[in-house]
Order: sequence, then C-alpha cells, then structure tokens
Amino acid sequence: MPDIEHVREMSDALLDLMDDWNILEHDERLARFKSLEISDAKRFFFFLDNYERSGLLQSFDGSEAQIWIRLLAPDDAADILRDLPRKKTAFLMSLLDDFTRAEVAAILSYDEDSAGGMMSPLFLRARINMTMGEAIEYIRKQMQHTRVKATRYAYVLDEGGILKGVVSMRDLLTSRPSVPVAEVMSQNPIAAIDNMSTDEIRQIHDRYKFQSIPVVDEAGHMKGMLSIEEILEMVEEEATEDIQRLGATESLGAPYFEVPFRSMIRKRAGWLSVLLIGEMFTATAMGHYEDEIKRAVVLALFIPLIISSGGNSGSQASTLMVRAIAVGDVKQRDWLKVFLRESASGLVLGGILGVLGFARIFFWPMREVLYGKHYIRIAFTVGFSLVSIVLWGSLAGSMLPFLLRKLRFDPATASAPAVATLVDVTGIVLYFTCAKIFLSGILL
Amino acid sequence: MPDIEHVREMSDALLDLMDDWNILEHDERLARFKSLEISDAKRFFFFLDNYERSGLLQSFDGSEAQIWIRLLAPDDAADILRDLPRKKTAFLMSLLDDFTRAEVAAILSYDEDSAGGMMSPLFLRARINMTMGEAIEYIRKQMQHTRVKATRYAYVLDEGGILKGVVSMRDLLTSRPSVPVAEVMSQNPIAAIDNMSTDEIRQIHDRYKFQSIPVVDEAGHMKGMLSIEEILEMVEEEATEDIQRLGATESLGAPYFEVPFRSMIRKRAGWLSVLLIGEMFTATAMGHYEDEIKRAVVLALFIPLIISSGGNSGSQASTLMVRAIAVGDVKQRDWLKVFLRESASGLVLGGILGVLGFARIFFWPMREVLYGKHYIRIAFTVGFSLVSIVLWGSLAGSMLPFLLRKLRFDPATASAPAVATLVDVTGIVLYFTCAKIFLSGILL
Repeated sequence: MPDIEHVREMSDALLDLMDDWNILEHDERLARFKSLEISDAKRFFFFLDNYERSGLLQSFDGSEAQIWIRLLAPDDAADILRDLPRKKTAFLMSLLDDFTRAEVAAILSYDEDSAGGMMSPLFLRARINMTMGEAIEYIRKQMQHTRVKATRYAYVLDEGGILKGVVSMRDLLTSRPSVPVAEVMSQNPIAAIDNMSTDEIRQIHDRYKFQSIPVVDEAGHMKGMLSIEEILEMVEEEATEDIQRLGATESLGAPYFEVPFRSMIRKRAGWLSVLLIGEMFTATAMGHYEDEIKRAVVLALFIPLIISSGGNSGSQASTLMVRAIAVGDVKQRDWLKVFLRESASGLVLGGILGVLGFARIFFWPMREVLYGKHYIRIAFTVGFSLVSIVLWGSLAGSMLPFLLRKLRFDPATASAPAVATLVDVTGIVLYFTCAKIFLSGILL
Repeated sequence: MPDIEHVREMSDALLDLMDDWNILEHDERLARFKSLEISDAKRFFFFLDNYERSGLLQSFDGSEAQIWIRLLAPDDAADILRDLPRKKTAFLMSLLDDFTRAEVAAILSYDEDSAGGMMSPLFLRARINMTMGEAIEYIRKQMQHTRVKATRYAYVLDEGGILKGVVSMRDLLTSRPSVPVAEVMSQNPIAAIDNMSTDEIRQIHDRYKFQSIPVVDEAGHMKGMLSIEEILEMVEEEATEDIQRLGATESLGAPYFEVPFRSMIRKRAGWLSVLLIGEMFTATAMGHYEDEIKRAVVLALFIPLIISSGGNSGSQASTLMVRAIAVGDVKQRDWLKVFLRESASGLVLGGILGVLGFARIFFWPMREVLYGKHYIRIAFTVGFSLVSIVLWGSLAGSMLPFLLRKLRFDPATASAPAVATLVDVTGIVLYFTCAKIFLSGILL
C-alpha cells in the first residue's frame, strides 16, 4: 500500500501503462515497465498486485531483481516467494538484506492462510516502562527509519516481547508526556494467535472492527500485526472464492487473465464433470418413466421447465444461506428457524410459480391442439409439480449448507449448481408422481 | 466502529447477548438490551449494525431514543434515518443537537449510494496558513473534543474551505514544528466528488488504496471523508449483492432474519417468475420436436442432462466474468481476448464432457435394452451435443456481462440462472439438430 507521499502527480506514461496492462502480453509488459522513469516505475510497482509483481521479478536478472524485491514489505515478499519453485525462492531470498530475510523466513514458516502467514512483522511499538513522552519519541524514530506501516495503534511490549497493551494515536497525541505508558494503555488487548485461520480472524474483525489486529504466539509474544488492508484483502478474496464456487468452478486463486490455460481448464472441468455425473441420474430416473412418456409425449415438453424451476429455487435458497452464514447473519444453531422460514417461503413461492405454470397451459391459445383434450389435467400436473418442487428446492437448498457445515465441510460447497443437480433428479420423480395422480386411467 | 478504548473487558451478560441476538424475537431483544448495564449497553449498541440499531431506536420512547441517537456518528444516524417513514425521521431528527442535525441533513440531501451519502462529515483538519506545530495542537484539540474518527491523514483547507492538501500522521509526528504546513503537505490530493457512485469510489480505492478518501463538491469545498471502514463496508455489501443476484434473487439489502417475510417473497418471486417465463420457451421449443420424441422416446431421457450441462458451463463462465469485471481484473475492451479464451476453454471443456457423456451410453451394461440397437448413434448424439452446448454456454455466459455493461446495465444482471435459462432454450435446438444429423433415416 502506498503512503500518501507517493501520490502527487502521475505522468501520462504511467497512467497509460496502468490502463493498458491487462491487454499486454508478458514481453510487452516487461518492455513498457522498463521504459518508465524510475519514480514512475516504483509507483507502478506498488500499484501492481503480488501476482503481477511476481511475474516481473521472475523475468529480471539478479541485480534488477534485487532492487525491486528490496522495495517490498516483508509480508508482500513472503506472499510472492511462497508460490515460486523452491530454487527460485532460494535465489530471491539471497537478494534480501539479512534483517528482512529473517522476517520473510518467519512468515514463510506459517501456513499461508493463517494469521502468521498473512501478518506484517513491522508494527509501531512502545516499551511498558516508558512514559508517553518517551514513547512518542521512540515511535517518531520508528516512523523515520523503517518501512513500518503507520497505523492508529502502537503496541506495548514488556522486556520479553510479550504483548501487554495498546495505545492509540489519539492517546499519544492527547496524553501528558510525563504519564507512564502503562497507565494510559488498554490492557490485555484482543489479539489473534499466529496459527488462527482466516475464518477465525474474520470473526475477530467482525466483532471488534479494529484498524489492526496484533498477532501473538501461544505464549503471548507479539509476532506481527494484521492491518485493515490485509483484512480487507482477505475479505475480498474470500468473497471471490465463494462467488466462484457458487458458479460451479474451483476458486481460480488469481485474476482471470493471469491463470494459465491448463490450470483454468483443470479448475473448471472438475466441477462440470462431477455435475454431469450427477445429472446422469436424471437419465436413469427418466428411464423409469419411459413408458409414461411413450403414452403421453406431451409430458416430456414440460420437463425442462419443471426441473429448472426446482433448480432455480434451490440455487436461490442455498446462495442466500451460504452468504448469510459467511457474513455471520445466520449461525449453525439457527437451522430450525431457517427451516420453518424456508418452508413458508417455499410454499408461497411455489404457489406463485404454480399459478403461472397452470395459466401458461390453461390459457394458451392452441392448448387443445398442442396438449390434447385433457389439457386441464396437464395444467394441474404442471401447477402442482411446480409447488412441490419449489418447496423441495427451497428446503434442500437452505438445509444443505447447514449439513455440510455440521460435517465440517465449507458450506459454499453447496454451490447453487450442486443443489440444482440434486433437485433436478428428485424433480423428475416428483413430476411423474404428480402426473400419475392427475392422469392415471386417462393418459397413463 | 468502536475505538480501542471501549474494549478492555466484556461482561458475561454482554457476551451472552452478542451470541443470542440472532435467535431472539424483537421483544426479547429489547428486554435483554434494557437489562444491560449502561456501559455494556453502549458497547453493545456500537456492536450492532445500523438495521438493528434502527429496530431498537424505533421501539424507544422519546427520552430513551434521544440518548441513543446522540451516540451515533452523523453518517450512521443518516444511514438509519434514510430508511424510516418521513414522520419518524422528522421526530428522530428533532432529538439531535443543532450541529449534528445540520450534518445529518447534509448527508440525507445526497443519494444513498453516492460519495456524499456515505461520507462522514467529521474529519481531522488543518489550516493552510498554520505551522506544523500549530497544526498538531489544532488536531490534538479536535481529537479531544469531537467524535471525529482518528485516521492516518489530516486534510488541509484554505479560508474558503477548499481542500488544498493532506498531511499524514507520520508527517505530523516527524516534521519540525516551525515548518509551514503548506511546505509539508501533499498538494492536490486525489478526492471523490460528492455525487460519485459507489463504482467510481471503488475505482479510486482500487487504484490508490488510501486509508481514507476526501469528498469535495464540484467547486472543491471539502464536505467529508470516506474512511477505509466505510469503503470496506461498501465492498462487502457489493459482494453480497452480486452473490445474491448470482443466486437469482434481488439483493435482500438486510441480514436474512431482518428482512420481513413479505419483502423476502417479493424479492425472490420476481426473478423466479421471470426465469419460469423464460423456461416456458423450452416447452415451445420441445413442442417443435414432439414428433421426433414420439418416434424416439429414448431422446427424451437425455434432455435434462444436456441442458443442465449447458446451463452449468454458462453459469460458470458468467460468474467468472461478472466477478472479474467487478474487481477490475477484466475491462470492457478486453472482450475479444475473453471471447478467444472462452472459445478455447469451451471447446476443451465440451470435449471432456462429451467424452464422459459418450462413455456413459457406450459402456453402459444394459445399453441395448435401454437405448436400442442404435445406441452408438445415440452416444454420438449426446457426445456431440455436449461439446456444442458447453462451447455455446461458455461463450454466451462470458459475453453477456460485456453486452449488459455496454448497454449500461449492471453486468451482475447476467446472473448464472439467467444465462442458464437462455442456454436451456437454445440447448434443446442444438440437441435435436445433432439428433437429426446422427439419427436421420434411422430413428428419425
């Protein structure tokens, strides 16, 4: 993240490259980047995300790479190095200064999606035996000499590096200089443990909404901090993952154009194949009703309409529930309340669609030519099928995320298409059951 | 957003209420909230979101309501008042102090989704003719006396209130006190215009990643600021809206349990009905092929399989594209590059599914009993239909968001279910066309 100092004015060459970046091939990117003036190039390097920085870094020779990797904050450097082949990582690590290398190595020792793997090891600190006046002098020096991100808080550590408290910029600016830090600070601040998952960090963020969250190890030693920027990035990445899963693809994990073609196919083909295999049961289910279709071909005409309505209502309910669980609006133990609410919603929504479906047949100008003289019974079959399948879709779609969570899977696995496939197969059975009720002895 | 000062320790009563809140009915919520000690109640009130605060405020009598509404920052108060009936709004406005009332009224005069409608009118300021020493004194006073959010920046205004520059906390803490503010500040800072939309604000945020964005009117007068918290909230709300649209529902605009039943039905029934009406064309399309189905009922068995595969690949492509456009990975003019990439992806994905579909029939144990002696031709029909429909789904799904954007609609309107419906109808035509090629003169 750039500090405000970097802004001032941006050259045309810089703005042009920002606009063109996405449609350029790798070699053109490299050439245009190298043609920038050094101040513009630095500004641009900060504008890029870590995927794109990684692409540039890998194309540079040693001395160039050294300039650029040393510009990065340790958490960004770790983020880039983590995804490279081991040999490349070792080479780039060797270009860092000793101090940063130790910090990057510390981050790399954590799991990528843990608090430790995302934290920045640079933070503003004060010592617990200082006065506020000493603390402000100490913090002033840190701001002048390191690449620490300026935040709203400074963390107070004891001699052993244990996190003891936190003071805000407001405290620093408004307290008398002679007061001890220990008197002003908030004690026992909320902190993330270094091995906490993104979900747990998100829960802390949702509850406290701090500008930054300190990260400590089990013994309480302060290891780094998660700033609001990192939390913001994490929240966006999670939303993107959820959205992509809802769209029946594995999370791409990178911007669309940055994902290599083979890996894009692998991530998309998996789910599509699983869903196809799921849909094969529709052929099996239909097979059971082959005789009925032979006797009343008119029934076949409405199958896509029926199953897709079930699929849509299932997608709708599962999407609402997956998102409500993700943002914390709905908890696991709310399931019964959701079940009751979705039963009511499903019935009303089914009723609305059922009436529309009934009307489509009952009032169609050529109804007798198209659907035969028993068109009223066909209309009832379609109408009642819609009521039951929309109810079933709403219940299956809303309950599956709870079930998956109970079984310790990610609720977003109950992606809309997975629910739709489930509802498709059962929808065929529901439809032909309704048909038997209304048409038995007449067409069937 | 609570300042760190509010944290320290949380009582059991407070933690219990935080956990129970979602499953409580309105009256229980009110009773439990009123039973909290005042310091806990204040802490809890800050923990709630504006929907929930609004619910409480409306149940309080005048003197109670006055206590609570006066705790709110002007932007939160405006957010709550905006959605209430006019009479209620007027009453609650009358409870505010004169100064806050003027600020709230200013925010309410803007569109809800504009920079002006979301900004906080409180920000740290310095005057352009001050020295850094004077500025730090001035800012210290602002921090002591108002509810201004402490941010990393203070904005520098001239006598007429025109935004001239910005200084960071780092500048304030590290500059010599005798230096004029005008020498230290970054000039001409990037600012949002008060009538900018959320999309435009997001673009500024994506490009500059500032901790806060100043909001000015057309003439350059500073009106307020968007802090990273507000931008974070906006990004999350947008993601939720996109996710809900992808799931075929209008954006609920509130947490699941907070949406009244009638309004939930209205928001969900609309899309489901539109999709049902779209799917009615499948019945029309199928009607054209009634003779073919009569002659070869076996064809009907694979219709759900075929159209759902087209729907899934369409959902997948549109979901990837809608998200890539939303986060700025893909721009409008990248459409041709996307078209070429999706043509290739669609062919490969179609090939994979085609082979699976072919194998399902060709290697099925009872193939001759179930699918007749021409089962090989049926297998080719299904296989080739899958290739063509997956290709078509990928292209339609990826291009529709660009088309919608060109026509100035929100690309997220190309929700997965809308694309799936479009692909369903055309899928039937593709399938029977393949059938005619492979089975003409044999079964058809």
